Amino acid sequence: MKIENPKPIDWQFSTRAEQLQSSVIREILKVTMRPEIISFAGGLPSPATFPVERMKAAFDTVLSNQGKVALQYGPTDGYGPLREWIAQSLSTAECKISMEQVLMVSGSQQALDLIGKVLIDDHSKVLVETPSYLGALQAFSLYQPEFVSVPTDDNGLLPHEVAKIADGARLLYALPNFQNPTGRTMPVERRLQLVEVCEKLGLPLIEDDPYGALSYRNEPLPKMLTMNPDGVIYMGSFSKVLTPGIRLGYVVAPIPLIRKLEQAKQAADLHTSQLTQMVVYETIKDGFLAEHIPSIRTLYANQCQVMLDALDEFFPAGVTWNRPEGGMFIWLTLPKHIDCMHLLEEAIEQHVAFVPGASFYANAPEKNTLRLSFVTVPPEKIREGVAKLAKLIAAKLK
Amino acid sequence: MKIENPKPIDWQFSTRAEQLQSSVIREILKVTMRPEIISFAGGLPSPATFPVERMKAAFDTVLSNQGKVALQYGPTDGYGPLREWIAQSLSTAECKISMEQVLMVSGSQQALDLIGKVLIDDHSKVLVETPSYLGALQAFSLYQPEFVSVPTDDNGLLPHEVAKIADGARLLYALPNFQNPTGRTMPVERRLQLVEVCEKLGLPLIEDDPYGALSYRNEPLPKMLTMNPDGVIYMGSFSKVLTPGIRLGYVVAPIPLIRKLEQAKQAADLHTSQLTQMVVYETIKDGFLAEHIPSIRTLYANQCQVMLDALDEFFPAGVTWNRPEGGMFIWLTLPKHIDCMHLLEEAIEQHVAFVPGASFYANAPEKNTLRLSFVTVPPEKIREGVAKLAKLIAAKLK
Repeated sequence: MKIENPKPIDWQFSTRAEQLQSSVIREILKVTMRPEIISFAGGLPSPATFPVERMKAAFDTVLSNQGKVALQYGPTDGYGPLREWIAQSLSTAECKISMEQVLMVSGSQQALDLIGKVLIDDHSKVLVETPSYLGALQAFSLYQPEFVSVPTDDNGLLPHEVAKIADGARLLYALPNFQNPTGRTMPVERRLQLVEVCEKLGLPLIEDDPYGALSYRNEPLPKMLTMNPDGVIYMGSFSKVLTPGIRLGYVVAPIPLIRKLEQAKQAADLHTSQLTQMVVYETIKDGFLAEHIPSIRTLYANQCQVMLDALDEFFPAGVTWNRPEGGMFIWLTLPKHIDCMHLLEEAIEQHVAFVPGASFYANAPEKNTLRLSFVTVPPEKIREGVAKLAKLIAAKLK
Repeated sequence: MKIENPKPIDWQFSTRAEQLQSSVIREILKVTMRPEIISFAGGLPSPATFPVERMKAAFDTVLSNQGKVALQYGPTDGYGPLREWIAQSLSTAECKISMEQVLMVSGSQQALDLIGKVLIDDHSKVLVETPSYLGALQAFSLYQPEFVSVPTDDNGLLPHEVAKIADGARLLYALPNFQNPTGRTMPVERRLQLVEVCEKLGLPLIEDDPYGALSYRNEPLPKMLTMNPDGVIYMGSFSKVLTPGIRLGYVVAPIPLIRKLEQAKQAADLHTSQLTQMVVYETIKDGFLAEHIPSIRTLYANQCQVMLDALDEFFPAGVTWNRPEGGMFIWLTLPKHIDCMHLLEEAIEQHVAFVPGASFYANAPEKNTLRLSFVTVPPEKIREGVAKLAKLIAAKLK
């Protein structure tokens, strides 16, 4: 029972969907999945850090003790004990966060989509860092804003530049800890300045913090959330401290916004897996992250150092990079005449991959930049890959 | 380190978010979670049907054998073997579905959001049944369409009415099997007529099918997807045949659309939990659903019969209802002067709950309708609850 020779549909996509493109990064990742490629392109955490056995035990416990609840529909705002745990973990002596301010989401990428849905109209002005996280640009772009790039320096966003361009803006999106893509960190004084500027302007400040726990040296810097919980929207994730494949993150915001985000979440997917939330709570409730996170920090700090040493050893003069204090990325600036998209094509022929920096700019891409990740590549391969890249670049400087 | 006396933000929500409201049903469900309430309001499957032990074993197997893969980021389109399984399960002798046409989503509610995002512009005309699934109306409404309700009868949508009102429409949303909220089924001849009408019009036809497997008597009727895979967008779910709390569904569509939906999915949440997908595949790959689904059918069919018998026994003349051939719902029409929202207030005082039908209408709500679910209430409580409702209604007919 099938109709004969149907004519195919002439698809009319929405205006927002017409401008939608697949992430350059994810397209590159498809190529770099080939085992012969040394890939510095990934944004993936190292699977060596995944606490598989502990999570297996947690699944067993939750399904044995509360299986029928874990497998049933659950509340849109999330699993109460986990929301409470998150609220407590973010609270400081000066600033109490309540679980009512916490909404669980299916990875913090979903928080970006929900925030865009709820705060951005067509042509709304949206302020972003220069450069900024590609996934945020993608998520927001579906709601057709006008992005305005805030000038930055090696310490991130310049707060005094914000006021000059903030008129009519709906939000400012910032990633203060070990930023993706640049790996840079915003110092505490500047965080406070930024929070103050935004408060004066009545401008919602988004603090995206997937890497905050991955500081190599010191305790993490104070969160902007705790400097002004009435004006900051905080996004956190279990992807980098536990495991990303389960898709679990959270957003913390003032109550009027969190209720609106909850309504949008309900329409988007009803709720995030109950089972996943209960298992994560079971995994971390006894303080597991306090033991576990230092082992991730040590691994990443060591591999970062290997890459920095290799860059120092092999790379020609004229290329600059930062020395990250945490996170997963190093950001390189090459001489102006080198287009890193072309460089990538040559690099892939040599079985090395990275992400060209241009994708991370909302406006005026700097094509002579690139992002390297060191977390999933073993040290000897890091050296080999950096040496190959150096050779390709050196050839362009002759 | 906290700023003093910040002024709260004067939130400016997007136009789409301003009109967003919490689902009446989910607000009612909060009240009806109280244990003393006999709730016919739920759309929840019965937890008695959840294969907890089998899924626990599947988690153990997947995490033991492929833990690091299951917990890592995965592809946006989904886990290949599960997509292949779905493609095969939907294929018929006449119509082969390929895994390339399958996109995994975080519950089929997410498919509604993605379809809305990709196909609906402001003021786009969207055709829906009268009445229709509330979650679809909610998801689509965020993209600010103009809903046009297609006339229906006891057998669902009237195909010849579609052509009269389809000019400029972006899609037609239909739920042919044991519809939510009415429980009605579209006969096979009418399915074919509808598919033909839509094909002639070049109108994308959405076939939402969460309940299709829950037929009480016969094999499920042919899917509209297999009548025209070039024109039908099919949505399926594991919520009603396995468990809803894990949030796993899928959408099957022609390639140009599925690639666009995949891009939208990537911006929305990168991908659906790898672990969940691998565990569901592990659970069902050896034919488990063929044994499991009949037990769900038997349970629901029995409870449906108990409710029908109670309605026959207790309900006054002047109230009509359908006799579902599957699924989870019975739809009641009361005398015109009874507003079921008021009736609900009285019913909750008597510790009985249901969902007023008005919420399910995109236009011109019929306030004298209501939806009853029988799947999570034990037989003796079904009788007790129906008797109480009958008494309340009878009092209004005096």
